[in-house]
Amino acid sequence: MKFSHLFKALAVVSLLSTAVATAQAASDDDAIELRKTTMKGIGASMGGLKMVVQGKAGTDMAKGFANAMAAYASIAGGLFPKGSDFGDTRAKEEIWTKAAEFKAAVMAFEQAAQGMAKAAASGDAGAIKGAFGGLGKSCGGCHKPFRKPKS
Amino acid sequence: MKFSHLFKALAVVSLLSTAVATAQAASDDDAIELRKTTMKGIGASMGGLKMVVQGKAGTDMAKGFANAMAAYASIAGGLFPKGSDFGDTRAKEEIWTKAAEFKAAVMAFEQAAQGMAKAAASGDAGAIKGAFGGLGKSCGGCHKPFRKPKS
Repeated sequence: MKFSHLFKALAVVSLLSTAVATAQAASDDDAIELRKTTMKGIGASMGGLKMVVQGKAGTDMAKGFANAMAAYASIAGGLFPKGSDFGDTRAKEEIWTKAAEFKAAVMAFEQAAQGMAKAAASGDAGAIKGAFGGLGKSCGGCHKPFRKPKS
Repeated sequence: MKFSHLFKALAVVSLLSTAVATAQAASDDDAIELRKTTMKGIGASMGGLKMVVQGKAGTDMAKGFANAMAAYASIAGGLFPKGSDFGDTRAKEEIWTKAAEFKAAVMAFEQAAQGMAKAAASGDAGAIKGAFGGLGKSCGGCHKPFRKPKS
């Protein structure tokens, strides 16, 4: 009976370990690759929104890029596991040493992206332009203090 | 009184024209640029999902890429206005000459992207893998018959 309990406990631990493993990137290099992949998507979405603001694309296209941005923003906080500041990355140490400030900057990005999605859904060109400005500012909120310049 | 009615009517027509203008890309070149920008976002999202399927990223990250994909898919049908087959593009004439088939292929992509979003929300690795396969197939549904090979 005790052995059976031990077995069950071990099985639970094993399951938990698997869950933790799949909930995080497999290695630091993978974490960096995932971050860069996300940033490419963020860049494309920003580019699409810029075209709308410049009048090169219709306001009805904004929702595609704005909702994509909000989706990327929703996982942004999970893209910086501890230890992923080594390797081919411009991520600064301050992301982890000033964790509270970084978290606040990521939350500001999330809120700006949600505001952008709301503006895009309204279809109002003025609202879209205003939200785009706020969104751009929130990019700088992370990139200025927490990203190394290009070497 | 009649003049006032005419003035109002003209004002309405003017407003409608503006609405139509902002609801479409400003030029064929812009339409092509918008398409390529969207495809970059789609590529990034596909890359992120691939990392999840390969176990290089956690299943909790899938929702960011899957929801972004669904957002891009929602505007995909509007990315091919008539006339945007000239210029620096691999879009084939068949997009417009076989409009019904093309529409069906775009709808299949939208449905696959929505299925991917649902699977990602579930967090189930098997469901994510299955939906990813369906999504990849739907990419080919447009790229094979409606895109020229790289020159």
